[in-house]
Amino acid sequence: MAFEHQTTVLFSQVDSVGIVFFARAFEYCHETLEAMLLAGGMPLHSILDGGDWAMPLVHAEADYKRPMRLGDRLTVRVDIEKLGPGSITFAYTILSEAGETRATAKLVHAVIDRKRFKARRVPQAAIDAFRRAGLTVPE
Amino acid sequence: MAFEHQTTVLFSQVDSVGIVFFARAFEYCHETLEAMLLAGGMPLHSILDGGDWAMPLVHAEADYKRPMRLGDRLTVRVDIEKLGPGSITFAYTILSEAGETRATAKLVHAVIDRKRFKARRVPQAAIDAFRRAGLTVPE
Amino acid sequence: MAFEHQTTVLFSQVDSVGIVFFARAFEYCHETLEAMLLAGGMPLHSILDGGDWAMPLVHAEADYKRPMRLGDRLTVRVDIEKLGPGSITFAYTILSEAGETRATAKLVHAVIDRKRFKARRVPQAAIDAFRRAGLTVPE
Amino acid sequence: MAFEHQTTVLFSQVDSVGIVFFARAFEYCHETLEAMLLAGGMPLHSILDGGDWAMPLVHAEADYKRPMRLGDRLTVRVDIEKLGPGSITFAYTILSEAGETRATAKLVHAVIDRKRFKARRVPQAAIDAFRRAGLTVPE
Repeated sequence: MAFEHQTTVLFSQVDSVGIVFFARAFEYCHETLEAMLLAGGMPLHSILDGGDWAMPLVHAEADYKRPMRLGDRLTVRVDIEKLGPGSITFAYTILSEAGETRATAKLVHAVIDRKRFKARRVPQAAIDAFRRAGLTVPE
Repeated sequence: MAFEHQTTVLFSQVDSVGIVFFARAFEYCHETLEAMLLAGGMPLHSILDGGDWAMPLVHAEADYKRPMRLGDRLTVRVDIEKLGPGSITFAYTILSEAGETRATAKLVHAVIDRKRFKARRVPQAAIDAFRRAGLTVPE
Repeated sequence: MAFEHQTTVLFSQVDSVGIVFFARAFEYCHETLEAMLLAGGMPLHSILDGGDWAMPLVHAEADYKRPMRLGDRLTVRVDIEKLGPGSITFAYTILSEAGETRATAKLVHAVIDRKRFKARRVPQAAIDAFRRAGLTVPE
Repeated sequence: MAFEHQTTVLFSQVDSVGIVFFARAFEYCHETLEAMLLAGGMPLHSILDGGDWAMPLVHAEADYKRPMRLGDRLTVRVDIEKLGPGSITFAYTILSEAGETRATAKLVHAVIDRKRFKARRVPQAAIDAFRRAGLTVPE
């Protein structure tokens, strides 16, 4: 189980070698996170605007397996890798149209209480949203 | 008649005021151009890779009517405004989900022969592609 | 009289043809605006955070004269083209190291009172800052 | 020993929370790599254009320690962490004006022979350039 999002490699995202500039891969992941939250009924702006919690990024990493080129249609798959007491780790796989892995990435978010500015558990409402979007939430 | 492309305002595209950074509106337009070319059966990479012609941008302009915010689902409509002997002007309208105009833009491309590096007419194959994508091509 | 800012064309800013992606030229202009405001003693964040006025962009345009390539050292010159009762127009020239014009641009900002959300004159403090940065402010 | 590059957080790089969008930190690192190569007398475009070798990114990671905000003047320090037979790892530290670490990052590049498309050692000319730029090159 996971959530999948389709995106296309744009002209503004490739470098002079004709390959996606590495930092754009992280943008594809965040775009997928936003699509997943929307699909789960908890769009990112609803967290940012009204929420009493936040999930700032504390770690990001990616492994580039094969080049992504202009016009490539990509599928980005996201699932939860780890759910800690004050953090959540999403694992991403970027696949070509043929199902070949182009890159993998991991984004670790701290989960904080905005008012008290300290670590907290992921709210149950968010866990419900992740599940509605198709993610497997570890116990 | 025109071609329409849907896009969503991403977190990476809004500024600290919560509004799309103005230069991103041009990226929405170019993204739409790429989608239009693909729909017409002449993807941008086919022009860049194999072509004997090119259409470098010589002028870009945009008018911002109303703010575009995180999560907004936008429709970008593109049509041909003018077809000159050595140039082509695309006109773009960025609409909210409710059909309200958020921004308009105009991109003027020179049309050049790559080998001789001089102005030329838009190739008939491109005009056919524009038509297949739904654009009205002025005579 | 004008304000000048130096910047270098980065790998992330060039496209697969090896030329600056057109929308990045607008980023060079805004970067120059920010440097000018800082030089004038009124950094952008001070306007955004504390101010009772704002200057949202309502129009942007650029003319591309010659390609800008990876590693090019550019000078961006900014001056005020027009100061209206509720707007301000900055004119930008992007020059190569040899002093050749690569692009020109114009950014028109509305000037608004944030509380009453209506047009107002550019505050005198901002005009003083523009002058301190070296700009010629039309009467 | 290391190479240091100064950069300023721009309006186009902060998100709606007023903090640098995480993927931009990787752009600061690459910008620093480009400045280092230039300082060493081997600008990136000289490698891309003429070279018989290349150093595509295979891994990128960053740890975000403290938020970077609009207008912050950052120093990015780069040094070589590891020099393998077919790869090179650069370590980056992004510091505030007060010398406080805002983020750290690591970029791992494969080093390849462009013609034979297989792994090779970093060319001696590149090692010389790294040294001229002030980096400590591990034996």
